[in-house]
Amino acid sequence: MSKKSKKKLKKQERVSLLKSAPNSRKTSKPAKKKAAAKATTESNGHSPAKAKKGRLVYFFGDGRADGDGKMKNLLGGKGANLGEMTRIGLPVPPGFTITTEVCTSFNLNNKTLPKEIHSQIDDAISKIEKILGKGFGSVSNPLLFAVRSGARDSMPGMMDTILNLGLNDETVQGLVAASGNERFAFDCYRRFIQMYGDVVMGVQKRAGEHHEPFEVVITNLKTEVFPGRHDVSDTELDASSLKVLVERFKALVRERTGSDFPTNPLEQLRGAIGAVFGSWNNERAYVYRNKYNIPYEWGTAVNVQAMVFGNTGDESCSGVAFTRDPATGEKVFYGEYLINAQGEDVVAGVRTPDPVATLQEKMPKAYRELEDVRAALEKHFHEMQDFEFTVENGKLFMLQTRNGKRTGVAAVRIAVEMVKEKLITWQDAVSRVPADQLSQLLTPIFDRKAIKAAEKIASGLPAGPGAASGRIYFSANEAEAEALKGKVLLVREETSPEDIRGMLAAEGILTARGGVSSHAALVARQMGKVCVCGAAALHIDYHANTLTVGDRVFQKGDFLSIDGTSGEVFAGEVKTAPSEIVQVLVDKSLDGKESATYGNFAQLMTWADKLRRLQIRTNADQPDQVANAVAFGAQGVGLCRTEHMFFEGDRIDAMREMILADTKEGRETAVAKLLPYQRGDFAGIFRALNGLPATIRFLDPPLHEFLPHTHTQQEELANKLGVSVEKVTRRVAELHEFNPMLGFRGCRLGIIYSEISAMQARAVFEAAIEVQKEGIKVKPEIMIPLVGFAKELELQVALVRQVAAEVSKQHNTRLNYLVGTMIEIPRACVVADEIAKEAEFFSFGTNDLTQTTLGMSRDDSGSFLPAYQNLEIIKQNPFATIDTTGVGGLMKLAIEKGRKTRPDIKLGICGEHGGEPASVKFCHSIGLTYVSCSPFRVPIARLAAAQAALADMTSAG
Amino acid sequence: MSKKSKKKLKKQERVSLLKSAPNSRKTSKPAKKKAAAKATTESNGHSPAKAKKGRLVYFFGDGRADGDGKMKNLLGGKGANLGEMTRIGLPVPPGFTITTEVCTSFNLNNKTLPKEIHSQIDDAISKIEKILGKGFGSVSNPLLFAVRSGARDSMPGMMDTILNLGLNDETVQGLVAASGNERFAFDCYRRFIQMYGDVVMGVQKRAGEHHEPFEVVITNLKTEVFPGRHDVSDTELDASSLKVLVERFKALVRERTGSDFPTNPLEQLRGAIGAVFGSWNNERAYVYRNKYNIPYEWGTAVNVQAMVFGNTGDESCSGVAFTRDPATGEKVFYGEYLINAQGEDVVAGVRTPDPVATLQEKMPKAYRELEDVRAALEKHFHEMQDFEFTVENGKLFMLQTRNGKRTGVAAVRIAVEMVKEKLITWQDAVSRVPADQLSQLLTPIFDRKAIKAAEKIASGLPAGPGAASGRIYFSANEAEAEALKGKVLLVREETSPEDIRGMLAAEGILTARGGVSSHAALVARQMGKVCVCGAAALHIDYHANTLTVGDRVFQKGDFLSIDGTSGEVFAGEVKTAPSEIVQVLVDKSLDGKESATYGNFAQLMTWADKLRRLQIRTNADQPDQVANAVAFGAQGVGLCRTEHMFFEGDRIDAMREMILADTKEGRETAVAKLLPYQRGDFAGIFRALNGLPATIRFLDPPLHEFLPHTHTQQEELANKLGVSVEKVTRRVAELHEFNPMLGFRGCRLGIIYSEISAMQARAVFEAAIEVQKEGIKVKPEIMIPLVGFAKELELQVALVRQVAAEVSKQHNTRLNYLVGTMIEIPRACVVADEIAKEAEFFSFGTNDLTQTTLGMSRDDSGSFLPAYQNLEIIKQNPFATIDTTGVGGLMKLAIEKGRKTRPDIKLGICGEHGGEPASVKFCHSIGLTYVSCSPFRVPIARLAAAQAALADMTSAG
Repeated sequence: MSKKSKKKLKKQERVSLLKSAPNSRKTSKPAKKKAAAKATTESNGHSPAKAKKGRLVYFFGDGRADGDGKMKNLLGGKGANLGEMTRIGLPVPPGFTITTEVCTSFNLNNKTLPKEIHSQIDDAISKIEKILGKGFGSVSNPLLFAVRSGARDSMPGMMDTILNLGLNDETVQGLVAASGNERFAFDCYRRFIQMYGDVVMGVQKRAGEHHEPFEVVITNLKTEVFPGRHDVSDTELDASSLKVLVERFKALVRERTGSDFPTNPLEQLRGAIGAVFGSWNNERAYVYRNKYNIPYEWGTAVNVQAMVFGNTGDESCSGVAFTRDPATGEKVFYGEYLINAQGEDVVAGVRTPDPVATLQEKMPKAYRELEDVRAALEKHFHEMQDFEFTVENGKLFMLQTRNGKRTGVAAVRIAVEMVKEKLITWQDAVSRVPADQLSQLLTPIFDRKAIKAAEKIASGLPAGPGAASGRIYFSANEAEAEALKGKVLLVREETSPEDIRGMLAAEGILTARGGVSSHAALVARQMGKVCVCGAAALHIDYHANTLTVGDRVFQKGDFLSIDGTSGEVFAGEVKTAPSEIVQVLVDKSLDGKESATYGNFAQLMTWADKLRRLQIRTNADQPDQVANAVAFGAQGVGLCRTEHMFFEGDRIDAMREMILADTKEGRETAVAKLLPYQRGDFAGIFRALNGLPATIRFLDPPLHEFLPHTHTQQEELANKLGVSVEKVTRRVAELHEFNPMLGFRGCRLGIIYSEISAMQARAVFEAAIEVQKEGIKVKPEIMIPLVGFAKELELQVALVRQVAAEVSKQHNTRLNYLVGTMIEIPRACVVADEIAKEAEFFSFGTNDLTQTTLGMSRDDSGSFLPAYQNLEIIKQNPFATIDTTGVGGLMKLAIEKGRKTRPDIKLGICGEHGGEPASVKFCHSIGLTYVSCSPFRVPIARLAAAQAALADMTSAG
Repeated sequence: MSKKSKKKLKKQERVSLLKSAPNSRKTSKPAKKKAAAKATTESNGHSPAKAKKGRLVYFFGDGRADGDGKMKNLLGGKGANLGEMTRIGLPVPPGFTITTEVCTSFNLNNKTLPKEIHSQIDDAISKIEKILGKGFGSVSNPLLFAVRSGARDSMPGMMDTILNLGLNDETVQGLVAASGNERFAFDCYRRFIQMYGDVVMGVQKRAGEHHEPFEVVITNLKTEVFPGRHDVSDTELDASSLKVLVERFKALVRERTGSDFPTNPLEQLRGAIGAVFGSWNNERAYVYRNKYNIPYEWGTAVNVQAMVFGNTGDESCSGVAFTRDPATGEKVFYGEYLINAQGEDVVAGVRTPDPVATLQEKMPKAYRELEDVRAALEKHFHEMQDFEFTVENGKLFMLQTRNGKRTGVAAVRIAVEMVKEKLITWQDAVSRVPADQLSQLLTPIFDRKAIKAAEKIASGLPAGPGAASGRIYFSANEAEAEALKGKVLLVREETSPEDIRGMLAAEGILTARGGVSSHAALVARQMGKVCVCGAAALHIDYHANTLTVGDRVFQKGDFLSIDGTSGEVFAGEVKTAPSEIVQVLVDKSLDGKESATYGNFAQLMTWADKLRRLQIRTNADQPDQVANAVAFGAQGVGLCRTEHMFFEGDRIDAMREMILADTKEGRETAVAKLLPYQRGDFAGIFRALNGLPATIRFLDPPLHEFLPHTHTQQEELANKLGVSVEKVTRRVAELHEFNPMLGFRGCRLGIIYSEISAMQARAVFEAAIEVQKEGIKVKPEIMIPLVGFAKELELQVALVRQVAAEVSKQHNTRLNYLVGTMIEIPRACVVADEIAKEAEFFSFGTNDLTQTTLGMSRDDSGSFLPAYQNLEIIKQNPFATIDTTGVGGLMKLAIEKGRKTRPDIKLGICGEHGGEPASVKFCHSIGLTYVSCSPFRVPIARLAAAQAALADMTSAG
């Protein structure tokens, strides 16, 4: 919305508010039956609360609530759980939730609220007033509101919040009177103007400004009041200073917006609600939704809740806590709080809060209540909870609870331990760990020796486990830009939602301020980023672009290393070592019993394997890769790319000789030189597999990839092969292609140069016989790439079978093998019935199938794909997650047709999607036999496959 | 088959023949019921003859025949018509036909004939012996056979023939005795050894040899017999010379093959049958089948027919004739013959034969019979016939008749005139002219003035009408190679089936010898090549690579021009002019009444338009192209490519400025400069269409196509736009793509740079309003390219409608327009139901849809596509003829889904397939509204559409 239209809107609102005075709200009777907005809900019938048609506002308070925890789609996570906590008797300040459907309606209808909502809001306010004995807009004992967003899934810090709403020059005096605390009342008032001015009225940093305008006003005032000091805390400002601040804030608003700060509480409330709904569209929310695949249509709810105050003095505090440690998963009470502060102060990381354990001493009663709440929450929700609380003058209030975000390590530990504690079933445990998060358990840690030798410069809170090294940058934008060139660490005093892109791009995040529940820690945990926060010894100079620790000064671009498991910060780049799990499974350098992380992981995998129906194979083309994958649980090779094998040493020469040969005989001579190498390659793989099947894809890439492209190299090659350099350059030119992706490659090569396929087949079979003689079973599955016409496969299969017969006869041995094809171009899907006549298996090559089905080159799509995601043309990157409608539609067609010809056809996928959980789920749903992925993604695929099977059972049951 | 295995086979045959002596064949009784080969037939129930299960051999003779003219699939064209002619009482020597199914069985079963065939052959031979009173293998009055191939469609000269079969040292004496003509008998014998030795035993030119080995023997003998002469004709060799020749031929066979020439007639017959069946696989047949899309499975039949002799002396001749002139279509008796010759001599073009009219004087009785036969054939077959005849000692025999191949001009004239003569209906006329052939009526002719000024160097027979200029080459291989660089004429003494590739590649064919029924003329006619044959003044020296006419010497590579309508040959390159039809319709420089060709064409088009259901539009982007297309009958523009418009003069500068702009504003400024040009372009097209609809496609190609690629040009551009050259080179580098076909193009451009689409929409609507004011109706149909996601179209449609609303409001005028999309990537087909929500029409972009569906770049497929066609992986070039299974399968899916959402959706095709008859037929069959093609192909599409509709009616009736 432009500034101009915003102004216009506000003027209209003001006019309508003049017509309806503060108390006139009770005169218009609600017309609930007329309400048009349809309410849908996930309520499953067991819930005591049900979505009610026409209800746009859900009240909670005093042990009763219109909604409950199951209504997250309609009420958002926060709203649903406020209802739920109210229902189970936890101390929740009363309030109401405006549904997510109103958000959608608001953003579709030119940012206007449905008419029928106003009377429902009025009703809810009345109830709250009755419970608390306060009045909204009352000049004696005013009711103030916190207005918060609340989407279906938590989107921490991504959308806007306004606290202390309802204050104006009159009501603030009521607050003074009611609380007997003038400083507190004006602290609330200045906070309100600041937040409302920023969020609703758009008083924000302009281009060229380095600081938020409200912060500038505060800093200037502090300098006036405490001349010469630079470390004045907000709490040092007394009531009279805060009164000055309120006036200066109002002046700032007037100057920046041309409007007075609104004084009518109802006008304030409507503005705040609109701003929260509007914030669903802000850039941060946008980026976040893309990252987490949250649909735009979900919208956010708005929670309007009576304020309780952590800032009334030293008997008050605001805090955030977890029922377990979200970084490690350990079952300890974990959290932090700030005395005499409102909740936003904790999350913002402006002051470093105190660990929650210290509250036991400072406010023993409140602490006991908190411990009870902690236990009650886990017992009720059967999940690790992340909750916000406020203690107002010694009394505990719960402001929010939700399932806590956690690191991958914590997710596994919590899931496994909760089974032991009988809080959840083992199936629940499998379903709860996001499969992707397992990668955090497999990423490198710092090498033990290297870490001992490293120069430790500081220590902070271990907020995101793992090891990260990188060049340091002090702005999110710069970190994002530099991350394209190499590894970076984002180093900030504290992070804020604006830094989200830089955080995404960085290897790790390091902050000087803020606790484990600060924005940095929270986001890092959720994204699986390595994070150390609140490393107070660091002094960051954004202007000079330096980081100072004692007398050590680091410039931007210097290397640092951070250990998010220990909280340590090191100078320079520290050497890394494989993760514990890799050390146990692959390197065998560590005993599984020594590592709790491994133990939990192994347990989870055992459960997963009991559930899953999909087999998991791996994409690997070297014996050591294969061995790793098998250690990770791979049940065979799903894709062995043979082209990589031709680039080493002499092989490339033979390959080039083949390409430059003029005759079939010449090519055969050259290809024959490759045979022993290929045989050795395959034998190594068969040994590593020790009886598991191996799908071997025949040569796929265009031949020009094997030729040198600089003139000097071409001359060298010409000399080596004894041909003219013109011949080499001519052949390079001949092989040049406009669209190599759609060119002379795949089985087209094997058909035109059948000697290549013949050699490869021979190598497979001779290797098989060699390894069989060692007593190892061998199951080769030869895969012909890029088939689009049944006849292509027919020709290649005939060749393979002929070679097999020859080799079989020569060695007087039977060979067991399959021949099949990759399905990777749309035509293959359309004629899959014909192709299945010859193909004993299909393996979907979803990389190329995506490129051809979408007419979109992976290498070239960078120029428009990000914009496409922003415009929501494409919800997910189709090269990462299968486009289930388009590409998936063709896959289903291929399966249906393939099975018509060959009902028991083996079906797999070997595109990179095979290790991506959503794609694995899709593969399960369409009935594939296996997925195949890179070795390190095998555990992820195992878990994802189990989750897919579990989801089937759940939906079937 | 390798030489070795061939030898082996022969040995086996010999052994089996020793066991069964010549006359033992009658001892084994036929076991017809056991026969396994299944006979299918196209016999429709009206036919007196029916395919009989187990019958492999169909007899004809003496007025009776097992087969008839309707059984072409089973008996081949020649065999079926021999039966038919026998049935209607024409003088056909008796014989029998072995079915095409035996061919398939033979080639699938390791080149062996089914066992049960031998007794059937024996029976047929007995019947012939009875009719003629001769004996196969008889030493007193031997029966000789001609063994000829005969596929379903005539494939002239593509397969092998053996005449005079049955001769050996004993039977030749019988022939001497029976004919009383020793010279004749030994002429037959030497011909037999030569043909059999070549075709069956493989005595052919070896690498390095310049002449056929048998011809070398003849030439040497002539030199011995007539020392010093170089022009000795075969007919000058007397009986004793021919006896010597026979012995030398047998010696040659022995020397080359290591085997004696077979003497057992039955063995000879089996060898000949096998060779004919095997010739279905030879390279010439192969190339020919690919060119004419003849499936391999069809196979050829073998016709074994009693010999009649045109070489008994001056009362005998062999000839070929047409019932009308196959070059012009004129109703005259047309043909030629050679006195004292066998049929092969006429077709081979070795001697230039005499026109058939001269036979009236030389053999008046035979000529009268021939005229009767000519009339009877047209009356019976209702088609122009091409027939072979032999006069043996004054008596006429018919050896073959078939529908005559003809030029496009002749096809139209014959069809139209036969309607006037009430021989056929007007619907028959429409169905008979191959739509593709119409292009021959539209290709240029020589400019009248230029031809008067040109240097005429020779004259020959006008065998393929049209004008052709090109560099002359004397070998087919060279012509084929040089044709890649420019226009060539193939110049030969005579052509032979080996020259087929060179003939295909050349613009025109010029021969020094051979008549209008020579191989050159026949093939040229069928392919629509310009051809002048028998230009006797030409002396060609293959060794020196020169063509001499009088004292003029032309080197290979020199330019000549040939007029295939007049038979004239000119030195140099003569200027051409549009065809008569273009002069009438487009240039209006000729009155339609002056041109018979135009009159026939116009009549045929009128009939076609009465039948067709498909509309025909054109692909054109300039007013003059549009005007031409409308003159040719286009009913609108189906594809106006807008990118071509941006390459002229200042436009490219504005385009480049747009591409180099850093901001949306910068782009808008640049794009605004293009608006007036685009508006002018569209206004011109709307005027040329005069009320017909225009489908305008928005910008499609990747932006890098608009930027200069040499450094100098980039510097110039930088100076012009006042930016650094680095900026230009960087932008060029940024826009570089690995696979531009799958890159940043199509609607992806219009979405990311919406200012381009907005400008284009504005130009369309402003132009529409401008032209509407002139009283001309305007029907713009805006087409968004490369849509794969419904949302893409949604965004572009919203933009177009917004611009339309703005322009409409500004000019206070209503705008009628449609917005639709190209369906050109597979995903669009899969989600066509979603896309149809916004699309008012679909236009299939089958060029890109083929590339993406097949994963095959048109530009790069040259490296494997020819081999793919040879291997029969792909039967037709998918970029010329729609791949109806793959691409067509997706088109059907798109139509089905599109109609689900929008039952009345308008459907078209704008790929280049839109003007290709088989593809037009497919478009008709799947229910498209229109096809769109280049202006010159509009008449072809009109005719093809009519034929498709006609085929529907026929199959429905």
